[in-house]
Amino acid sequence: MKLTIERAALLKALGHVQSAVERRNTIPILSNVLLSAERDRLVFSATDLDMEIIDQAFAQVDQPGQITAPAHTLYEIVRKLPEGADVSLSFTGEDPRLTVQAGRSRFNLPVLPAGDFPVMSSEGLSGRMSVDVTDLIRLIDKTRFAISAEETRYYLNGLFLHTVQSEGGAPRLRAVATDGSRLALAEMPAPEGAVGAPGVIVPRKTVNEARRLLDDAGEAVDLAISPQKVRFELRDAALTSKVIDGNFPDYSRVIPKDNTRIVMLDAKLFAKAVDRVATISAEKSRSVRMAIEAGRVVLTVRNMEAGQAVEELEIDYDGDPFELSFNARYLLDITDQISGETAEMRFGGPNDPALVLDPVDPDVQYILMPLRV
Amino acid sequence: MKLTIERAALLKALGHVQSAVERRNTIPILSNVLLSAERDRLVFSATDLDMEIIDQAFAQVDQPGQITAPAHTLYEIVRKLPEGADVSLSFTGEDPRLTVQAGRSRFNLPVLPAGDFPVMSSEGLSGRMSVDVTDLIRLIDKTRFAISAEETRYYLNGLFLHTVQSEGGAPRLRAVATDGSRLALAEMPAPEGAVGAPGVIVPRKTVNEARRLLDDAGEAVDLAISPQKVRFELRDAALTSKVIDGNFPDYSRVIPKDNTRIVMLDAKLFAKAVDRVATISAEKSRSVRMAIEAGRVVLTVRNMEAGQAVEELEIDYDGDPFELSFNARYLLDITDQISGETAEMRFGGPNDPALVLDPVDPDVQYILMPLRV
Repeated sequence: MKLTIERAALLKALGHVQSAVERRNTIPILSNVLLSAERDRLVFSATDLDMEIIDQAFAQVDQPGQITAPAHTLYEIVRKLPEGADVSLSFTGEDPRLTVQAGRSRFNLPVLPAGDFPVMSSEGLSGRMSVDVTDLIRLIDKTRFAISAEETRYYLNGLFLHTVQSEGGAPRLRAVATDGSRLALAEMPAPEGAVGAPGVIVPRKTVNEARRLLDDAGEAVDLAISPQKVRFELRDAALTSKVIDGNFPDYSRVIPKDNTRIVMLDAKLFAKAVDRVATISAEKSRSVRMAIEAGRVVLTVRNMEAGQAVEELEIDYDGDPFELSFNARYLLDITDQISGETAEMRFGGPNDPALVLDPVDPDVQYILMPLRV
Repeated sequence: MKLTIERAALLKALGHVQSAVERRNTIPILSNVLLSAERDRLVFSATDLDMEIIDQAFAQVDQPGQITAPAHTLYEIVRKLPEGADVSLSFTGEDPRLTVQAGRSRFNLPVLPAGDFPVMSSEGLSGRMSVDVTDLIRLIDKTRFAISAEETRYYLNGLFLHTVQSEGGAPRLRAVATDGSRLALAEMPAPEGAVGAPGVIVPRKTVNEARRLLDDAGEAVDLAISPQKVRFELRDAALTSKVIDGNFPDYSRVIPKDNTRIVMLDAKLFAKAVDRVATISAEKSRSVRMAIEAGRVVLTVRNMEAGQAVEELEIDYDGDPFELSFNARYLLDITDQISGETAEMRFGGPNDPALVLDPVDPDVQYILMPLRV
């Protein structure tokens, strides 16, 4: 293998694939990136056995070939090379290592044979659809904060991507994440091919890597889905990942339908007030009491050790007074998602889940369980 | 106590003093800041028993008085208040807590009696001098990176500030830091009062806090020194600290006088090359080999696991070839200090300390021990 490639193109492609590589690996070759030089391009592949990212870049290939080399080290070297440099990569019989050369810098990196590099099969990826990149970014950004980090409930450690029939009859592509205390839902009109594709739980790491790749993805991304795998095909890159083998709970039952106490409030002012009173909340519970009455909400945090905080905020509400408590962090995560000035909060009883809506975006819904006090 | 103060002034003063407060304290009152309202100002005081920072700000005092309240919590609250807010602080008989109020936010914080707050005596601080703030910043910035972090050699855990008689006869105020592998020295003409003041080892934390305060210090700072303590008096703030009780080693013996191999090189290009080859150095040794010959240096890193890196750089040198190895991190720390384009390196034998000079700043010297290979 022998080729020359622009530093910027090499850095971008390595940046795309290297984050699939775990920092510590018991299987040495998983620390490496597979480099495949063919015709006018260099193809990069990295995997942690659960996920595989492939990217490619134009290169002047003098001698095609394949080899694997340490992904993070190669990325660091290329990052530190001067801007605008031409980088030559060669693995020939003369040296049993990969030679990286640019200007008067020369690096020799240990390699492992390309034939030993694990390749993820894309068998069975039959459900195919083309999704607008902006729409997919929105589905991810509005929901991923609610993905559970609790490993025992492994079926909540991902984003549930699936198609539903809306009440109006048109099918919708929907993303849902929950950790049991809160739930985030975002949806869009189902693209062609989505109906009939299996619903899958996309693991958190895959969601984050896909989101990162979407920044450079152009206008549309092809999604391929099987009951075991999901694949994102972007302009130059492709991400294939196992999905979580489990059943996502039937979340539709927890979406409140009869929350009749409707409160409209300024999302930014509310978030700042919650953040302030939470300063003195105990690290673990972070409980904020909301006392709502006609025209105003009073936020209170009491902490035996750190004192007490009270904030008042004007709201649009004219019903009977009521009180309930929430985790401050969860309240902030949700108000952060509101695109417009106003957040709409629909409450039931003091122990019923609250529904938070974004009046300027009817395609998102947030549900938040109150804390029992 | 009852007063009103601008948020910005309150935040700045709390920011100055709160970093003296350790995150964890076995003595509860050390988590607090002492607030003293008198005439037209509020005085802030915080301490960790080794160091005390005092600052002050204008305030509209309705009722003078003193109290202590949690420093970090108070700082966080004030930080989160809206810009331009007026903050009222009150501690009256009605509530056994400190009330912090701004707009529609109200906080009640637990207090401890002002009388229990430890005050650091400034007794014996007799050696006094006025130092230009820019000069003192330079002394600190050029040297503090070399302060040792090794606790067993406690007498190296600080910056040695002392006066020396220069060869020309004029006295110099000098700051020296070393960790045994490298040494940094910066000096300036001794200000009036410096001669006769005892040399002191200023602890790392004190150096860093003093440096931070110097950013807002105006033009001159008054230094008061005793064998046990040092005090920095700035425009509004004052920092008093114990000094390290130990003897700083006689560093003058390690400053090479007869290093005759003089190499001039481009400091930035050299630093970038060292940084690149160090990418593949083993975490611990970080050893970079320098092979110097007429007109060029070749930098080499060899690592059994991660491969090999070679860089070449043009230098101004016309003597015989020689080789020696350095810790890459230490080389970078020193080249970072060079103000001009060129660094001057003076070498002796392969195991002799190297002297690094900054041709545009004759008042700094760096010494670096080579690694034995």
